[in-house]
Amino acid sequence: MVEQAKHRPGGRTAAVRAAVLRATENLLIDAGLGGIELPTVAVRAGVGTSTVYRRWGSVPALVTDMLHDMAERSVPRADTGSLRGDLRANAALVRRTLSAPREGRLFRAVIAAAASDEATARALAVFYDRRVAEWAECIHDAVVRGEAPERTDAEAVIRQVSAPLYYQFLTTTAPLTSRDATRAADAALAAVAAGVYSPARRRRS
Amino acid sequence: MVEQAKHRPGGRTAAVRAAVLRATENLLIDAGLGGIELPTVAVRAGVGTSTVYRRWGSVPALVTDMLHDMAERSVPRADTGSLRGDLRANAALVRRTLSAPREGRLFRAVIAAAASDEATARALAVFYDRRVAEWAECIHDAVVRGEAPERTDAEAVIRQVSAPLYYQFLTTTAPLTSRDATRAADAALAAVAAGVYSPARRRRS
Repeated sequence: MVEQAKHRPGGRTAAVRAAVLRATENLLIDAGLGGIELPTVAVRAGVGTSTVYRRWGSVPALVTDMLHDMAERSVPRADTGSLRGDLRANAALVRRTLSAPREGRLFRAVIAAAASDEATARALAVFYDRRVAEWAECIHDAVVRGEAPERTDAEAVIRQVSAPLYYQFLTTTAPLTSRDATRAADAALAAVAAGVYSPARRRRS
Repeated sequence: MVEQAKHRPGGRTAAVRAAVLRATENLLIDAGLGGIELPTVAVRAGVGTSTVYRRWGSVPALVTDMLHDMAERSVPRADTGSLRGDLRANAALVRRTLSAPREGRLFRAVIAAAASDEATARALAVFYDRRVAEWAECIHDAVVRGEAPERTDAEAVIRQVSAPLYYQFLTTTAPLTSRDATRAADAALAAVAAGVYSPARRRRS
């Protein structure tokens, strides 16, 4: 397998990784973190158990790689030309992701896993850090265009857009609507305009 | 036991309920929803198994009663005389709750449980509905004082204050700071002032 991988980069190795991570996702959705065992992942993925042990070795390593893969496959930032447009696109993406049947269940499962397992919590934090950094560029562009105050905390703004959608997703039984998404974006935009995320604000208050 | 309860309301019955719910909380923290069994709850609470079966009968009923009890014991809304003061008090309370060692673990465990179990999800939604309704009065008062637009969606504002704190709590490993709490309140306040939560806004946009 290792030899094959050398000769066909992105071929068999990538296919094995995709199958193993897909099996990990499915087990996490179906049975939670406690239900993941490497031999079961191997069977579900249709690969040898020794491959899974050699390449990942542990459940935390599998889940960490799964979250890396999820970040790699994520949608790039929007670039609509306005901060309102970009934040609304971000909110719409979050809503779409959490509302999609499989992805919604996967996010629920991984957040639940992070609540009880520190390695998963760290990997999940890295996943969100990467997603937030990708979208934070929208704020940097907005500052250049004069749409946001200098030194606006870009990461905090992106997290603020996601926050009400995740909070509703995790603590209510109400489905996320397009109005919820628009409101999440517009609320963050209002806070940016009021200087809540920029240093000048802190001096004034 | 039932006879005793009739003669001493709030006495033995209340003590049994408190012990059983405390045991339920501890099992949820230690072992998650799957780790709760009625006989174990009875042993940990120091009460008879038949009492637990007769009064609660099932794990979902226990968890639902636990969440009712948590709502009953929650801190009443603030009344500082200003919307900013009330929202900051709310944010400070949420931060304090999630940062307290035992309560933080309990909230993590119950949100994780809700992610995998529909009965828990419904009970958790009712818990937050009650907390939100309690604090929504702050917005109604602010409307009367002219601090918020007419017909501001009071519940949405209260949820908006909590959202970034819960989101950070569940998706990062960063501890919640007092600055995070202040910022959560001030961001919600800026969105209220901009009309994000009032109907006039929706007509304009």
